[in-house]
Amino acid sequence: MANIKDVAALAGVSVATVSRYYSAPEKVSKKNTAKVISAIAQLNYKPNLLARNFTQSRSYSILVVAPLVNPFLLDVIQGIQEIARTKGYTVLLADVLEAQNDDNKYYSMLDSRLVEGIIDFKVRVKGDKNPLAKIQNIVTLCDYAENSVAPIITVDDTKSAEKIVDYLISLGHRNIGCLTGLDFMHATHLRKLGYQNALQKAGITLSNKLIINGDFSVICGINAAKEFANMRPRPTAIFSMSDKMAIGIIQGLKAEGLRVPEDISVVGFDDIEFAQYCDPPLTTIRQPAKELGSNAMSLLCKLIDGKFDPETVLRPYFLPTELIVRGSAAAVK
Amino acid sequence: MANIKDVAALAGVSVATVSRYYSAPEKVSKKNTAKVISAIAQLNYKPNLLARNFTQSRSYSILVVAPLVNPFLLDVIQGIQEIARTKGYTVLLADVLEAQNDDNKYYSMLDSRLVEGIIDFKVRVKGDKNPLAKIQNIVTLCDYAENSVAPIITVDDTKSAEKIVDYLISLGHRNIGCLTGLDFMHATHLRKLGYQNALQKAGITLSNKLIINGDFSVICGINAAKEFANMRPRPTAIFSMSDKMAIGIIQGLKAEGLRVPEDISVVGFDDIEFAQYCDPPLTTIRQPAKELGSNAMSLLCKLIDGKFDPETVLRPYFLPTELIVRGSAAAVK
Repeated sequence: MANIKDVAALAGVSVATVSRYYSAPEKVSKKNTAKVISAIAQLNYKPNLLARNFTQSRSYSILVVAPLVNPFLLDVIQGIQEIARTKGYTVLLADVLEAQNDDNKYYSMLDSRLVEGIIDFKVRVKGDKNPLAKIQNIVTLCDYAENSVAPIITVDDTKSAEKIVDYLISLGHRNIGCLTGLDFMHATHLRKLGYQNALQKAGITLSNKLIINGDFSVICGINAAKEFANMRPRPTAIFSMSDKMAIGIIQGLKAEGLRVPEDISVVGFDDIEFAQYCDPPLTTIRQPAKELGSNAMSLLCKLIDGKFDPETVLRPYFLPTELIVRGSAAAVK
Repeated sequence: MANIKDVAALAGVSVATVSRYYSAPEKVSKKNTAKVISAIAQLNYKPNLLARNFTQSRSYSILVVAPLVNPFLLDVIQGIQEIARTKGYTVLLADVLEAQNDDNKYYSMLDSRLVEGIIDFKVRVKGDKNPLAKIQNIVTLCDYAENSVAPIITVDDTKSAEKIVDYLISLGHRNIGCLTGLDFMHATHLRKLGYQNALQKAGITLSNKLIINGDFSVICGINAAKEFANMRPRPTAIFSMSDKMAIGIIQGLKAEGLRVPEDISVVGFDDIEFAQYCDPPLTTIRQPAKELGSNAMSLLCKLIDGKFDPETVLRPYFLPTELIVRGSAAAVK
């Protein structure tokens, strides 16, 4: 690959002149400009973008830090890309679970302008050991905390969880198990609160024995199913904090010789594409995946363009969810 | 955020001195070094990484350009990240479908050293309008062409497709439909060849009327199901080039009042996690997703480290696939 020295040598000018051609072309004489352009073309020279971006201070890229284990994310990405395409941004993705090990890694890309903004599936709150000198050009997506340092696009996790547990209670269930999500995500705790609110409203005594800690994976659903199946009294219904885990629970219960929903009802959260194709089709809470993505990207573009007063945008935007009734929950016998 | 001028002003030195502190610290006097360090600490200054990387020419990041619509990808990513973690690389993802619109976009990140290597789900062949002056530090994953310009980690798509169509034929099927994948992916054409090879071996006349063009999405499976259902004679079995489309086909056939596998057998390709949880569980070809990812990342690391002669690695590595028999295909009546 030709470098800047090769271009300078072929053009018969100094390296500084070639560099100036990129950084301040108006300062290069017409004669030298012609020589440089000709040399660039002959050598198929490509300027080092690290240097060019350094001059422009723009990368036209944004980073999405998301849970790459959740297929729900793939639908959210569609929404992000729809907006990014119209605005000319490249969308890069990284794994929020990897970020757990080194919080600074992705945020330093923003700090150093390798990306212009971040859509983060993990809320950062005041008092966090914060990797950024100043939080800007960040949108939190699908996670929530009252004292977030960035604007938030999400759903009301508490009310949504409450809604689906209300539904189970309306079917006569009172002994309802719960499989939680990743502990470090605030959404997990908010959904747990919704589960507890619904039980309390119905006068049902809360029991931590009915709650199993999960991690949003199918395999933890399969394992939890065995635990639920062996509880005495056995729960008649299970609220899973994600569809993926719910699909694992159904599989695990079948392996224990139990039928869904005849023996145990199982409900999920997300409404991933496969929720409707599993056996039985999953009753769940639909999050508006694409809209969450497109709203987050639109907001991020406005932040990057400086069109928003941070104080104005610091309030969270809650998009509506919907209870989707399919075949995995039935009235208690 | 403090900039380099603020640091220089506070330290009482020139901007060039601060810059030199980062690029060639041995050239800065002890006295000035102390002043700069103190100013950096007071201002919590963070150097522009674009500039730092320009000096080091290393970003310690790699880019995976992949079909973000396919959940199979999520398993491949796990394998890539396992190796990346041990080697200290950050994994970034971008959408191969977006790359279709602007081929240069992601490759220029490598050309300009924003990333050190690329794992690309689309093979580049000699004679392509090539975005790179010189192909290096690129591994093609899950796509194949004989005249690839980069080393390849993949499965034998032709033999794998042939294997599952052989299986359908062994069940007595002779009128077998085919739903293809995205046309721009070589894997699509290789799998089609496997489908045709199997039919020819069995002395079955090929008919293009039995082939419908798909795009790997559930919805194209649903739409294709309607077409297959209305063909006369109606195929007794369908080979789908991805599990996701197969799940759509099953759904679409059900909507047409047809039973799987009693009326029509349906088989897929990939063995995504959900293949075993759909109704009926899907008979398919298992690609070793995690191993594909970890092998590609290991090879990329060796390329980046210059440990491989490009000529040596240009031969493709084929990982074995497996026929997974579940409930979606049955003997013809």
